[in-house]
Amino acid sequence: MFVNRTPRFEPLSEDALDTIDRGWKRLVSELGITFMHEPSLELFKREGQRVEGEVVFFDPDWLLERIKTTPTEFTLLSRNPEKNVQFGKDNMVFCTGQSMPFVDDGVTPRRDGTLADAVKLLRAAQMTPEIDTPGYPIIECNDKPLDSRHLDLQLAMYENTDLAVGAAQIHVNGVIDSIAMAQLALGGFDVLEQNPGVFGTINANSPLVFDTRMLESLWLLAERNQIVNITPFILMGAMGPVSLPAALAQQTAESLAGIALVQAIRPGCPAIMGSFVSNTDMKSGSPGFGGPEAALGILATGQIARRHNVLWRAGGGGLNASPAVDGQSAFESLNTMLPSFLAGANLQLHCTGWLEGGLVHSFSKVAMDTEMLRQMIAQFTPVEFSDDTLAFGAHEEVGHGGHFFGAAHTLERFRDCFYRPEVWTTDNYSAWTKKERPDATKRALAKWDELQESWEAPELDPDLHAELKAYTDRRRIELGD
Amino acid sequence: MFVNRTPRFEPLSEDALDTIDRGWKRLVSELGITFMHEPSLELFKREGQRVEGEVVFFDPDWLLERIKTTPTEFTLLSRNPEKNVQFGKDNMVFCTGQSMPFVDDGVTPRRDGTLADAVKLLRAAQMTPEIDTPGYPIIECNDKPLDSRHLDLQLAMYENTDLAVGAAQIHVNGVIDSIAMAQLALGGFDVLEQNPGVFGTINANSPLVFDTRMLESLWLLAERNQIVNITPFILMGAMGPVSLPAALAQQTAESLAGIALVQAIRPGCPAIMGSFVSNTDMKSGSPGFGGPEAALGILATGQIARRHNVLWRAGGGGLNASPAVDGQSAFESLNTMLPSFLAGANLQLHCTGWLEGGLVHSFSKVAMDTEMLRQMIAQFTPVEFSDDTLAFGAHEEVGHGGHFFGAAHTLERFRDCFYRPEVWTTDNYSAWTKKERPDATKRALAKWDELQESWEAPELDPDLHAELKAYTDRRRIELGD
Repeated sequence: MFVNRTPRFEPLSEDALDTIDRGWKRLVSELGITFMHEPSLELFKREGQRVEGEVVFFDPDWLLERIKTTPTEFTLLSRNPEKNVQFGKDNMVFCTGQSMPFVDDGVTPRRDGTLADAVKLLRAAQMTPEIDTPGYPIIECNDKPLDSRHLDLQLAMYENTDLAVGAAQIHVNGVIDSIAMAQLALGGFDVLEQNPGVFGTINANSPLVFDTRMLESLWLLAERNQIVNITPFILMGAMGPVSLPAALAQQTAESLAGIALVQAIRPGCPAIMGSFVSNTDMKSGSPGFGGPEAALGILATGQIARRHNVLWRAGGGGLNASPAVDGQSAFESLNTMLPSFLAGANLQLHCTGWLEGGLVHSFSKVAMDTEMLRQMIAQFTPVEFSDDTLAFGAHEEVGHGGHFFGAAHTLERFRDCFYRPEVWTTDNYSAWTKKERPDATKRALAKWDELQESWEAPELDPDLHAELKAYTDRRRIELGD
Repeated sequence: MFVNRTPRFEPLSEDALDTIDRGWKRLVSELGITFMHEPSLELFKREGQRVEGEVVFFDPDWLLERIKTTPTEFTLLSRNPEKNVQFGKDNMVFCTGQSMPFVDDGVTPRRDGTLADAVKLLRAAQMTPEIDTPGYPIIECNDKPLDSRHLDLQLAMYENTDLAVGAAQIHVNGVIDSIAMAQLALGGFDVLEQNPGVFGTINANSPLVFDTRMLESLWLLAERNQIVNITPFILMGAMGPVSLPAALAQQTAESLAGIALVQAIRPGCPAIMGSFVSNTDMKSGSPGFGGPEAALGILATGQIARRHNVLWRAGGGGLNASPAVDGQSAFESLNTMLPSFLAGANLQLHCTGWLEGGLVHSFSKVAMDTEMLRQMIAQFTPVEFSDDTLAFGAHEEVGHGGHFFGAAHTLERFRDCFYRPEVWTTDNYSAWTKKERPDATKRALAKWDELQESWEAPELDPDLHAELKAYTDRRRIELGD
């Protein structure tokens, strides 16, 4: 687990944060938020909030009071206890790319994702120590029936990794089955009552709406004490005004309302303030990612979450709008990932493989993003400043105008004194030419192949495997597929 | 001019800065610094410093006192007064790539740079409002005689741009001619006595040496009140120990000694604390750029410079070790440029076109880096947080679950509400496919071509042009070429 001990970068003034506070308070109290879900409306009524039709008008002070039971430290269990995921103040949890319909295998043009692709992506995650969880779904398994494909993918997660997993939050059956399988894998109902065994992302249907399907999933997760990541999905210009302060006020309104609902359902249930704010490209009408507005949105969300003492999720670690694994995709990804580290996001989805605005999971980009993630982890690991690291002795040894290649100080440390890239190269032109001039995308694809070849099946008790398989077989029939 | 009004990111503690202080003080006083230049040694003696052979042992308190005459605001003149360059606390000055021997024209493999390439690069700089100066030299003009090529390039700068220029700091004749031509262009000796007309980068020959050639140039610049950018060139593992604290102590020792010399020569002469710290790839022995150590080095240098109340230069805006314009080059460039903005560097060399560890000036990368630079300027321009930008009215208009495309608030602002990329695309897959799937590098090359076609000759008084030309013709003969 990476603990980010570098100080936070907080560009927003207290005045700016106060302005956002005024904004979300006015939204929740004057416009209210729609909950398309009778039990949620009933619950808010019981909690003393004004409800008109499907719209809940919140007392901002009640919201602030209600979210106070949200824990700021919790553990997401994995079937391999060594890979339990600790959520907490300075901890950063890294998740692979999520939910892409297409795959870029680096050989053929983009095509529909399949269960076989999911298996490859899961194996890459398993072999990447920086990745804490493959979440759910690592890719859409379009070759499997819609209503039961979550069973195939949940099973594949247990077969190909021993990492903590996400819930199939897209519908009630998905959540039921994810929790049921986590119970099998982790030791039963009581174990999950103590510590969550899955996490689920609940998107607001922005602006200012939570829809039935998401609320049904939210309730199931909250009732069972599983982690609920409340994420308004706001592309400014489409689901929010074309103004970052407005979008941040809206995001805060929606996420606080969702967290308050979770706490009203089950006080103390782990909940996370999610963020996914970016802009629409006003020329093309398409989503833009990795732009200046999104970068500031990430930094601002960190400050907002800390003001409200809740853990938070940054939109992602490697968001970009690029159709190709190229300079744009690397620039936009880093301009998302670096702000997430500067802001100390507690959870980062989409750290690896994201391409084309999230439509494509790219194999070469998985390897390239892993390089970026590894480097960011190194970059945000504080350097020791001490008389020892001043290395005066090395200067004494080398003297004026000498070089340090052969210095004792260097020889003792050369293996781990600097970050060592695996995809990036410092080959000179002639060495690079001898290798037929592979660009970073090509080298990343070779690294992906290595990762695939390196995969070793994690230990999986045959009885547990049989139970999981039997469960999915039974449920597949029940779901009519 | 861009003024960076975003707060600085300062990850180093006061303790860490104190440690660096202990480090450089010990270096300058116990090991001393070599100055291969009799007048410099004489001057330091007169100033009361201990000199043994070519080594000067400094009293750290004297150094701190001596640099106090360094101005923290000054103006670099341009022949177009609207393009004068203001150096100062929050100002950031952006310079093109510098000193590359090779060019990547995007069509043929890398080849020697020529004067014709320099002209193209200068024209691109002229047409890029974000670029404040082409510095010197924008590329090595290998088709021209070594001893006089600075005349060709200085003339080309005046012919193709009306930007402030750098001095040919590489040798005495270069500095003499650069200042002489600046006098012609700017109005004579007295004008340059008031405000500098060129800036020059003086590299320490690290570790702990200033060589004869650089010191001769330093003296000429300082005696004439021109800007001196004192830059230790430290690749850890080669010219410095494999420890960032040690390299920062060394960099501070060398740069403070250089600045003190400038102030001893002419108190009040503009001087800049330069930084160019990165690591050696200990596997290949080649220089690495854009790594975690370099990024922290940039952030740390900002803190060190502010502690000593001097302006400072970040290594560069787009450093990278990549042999190709690809994901690596974009990643490493942004991981250099973004820290430079976070740290508020007063001068950034190498903002555009840098490739392959600075061996290559790449045309497509010029356009790609310009995109990055424009975006960083947008990203570090503070957003207004106010009741107005909260845009409550837009939410009232759109309501729950609607979209903001057609909202009055959007229609009034859609042209400039977000950063608009020129090289990056948000084209969807089918639109991109219709364009034959150009990656960012290919689109950047097209943008470069546009830039070339858009060039308009800046106004240049025919008499001045004739004077400049006559000067270079005469000097070329004097220099024997």
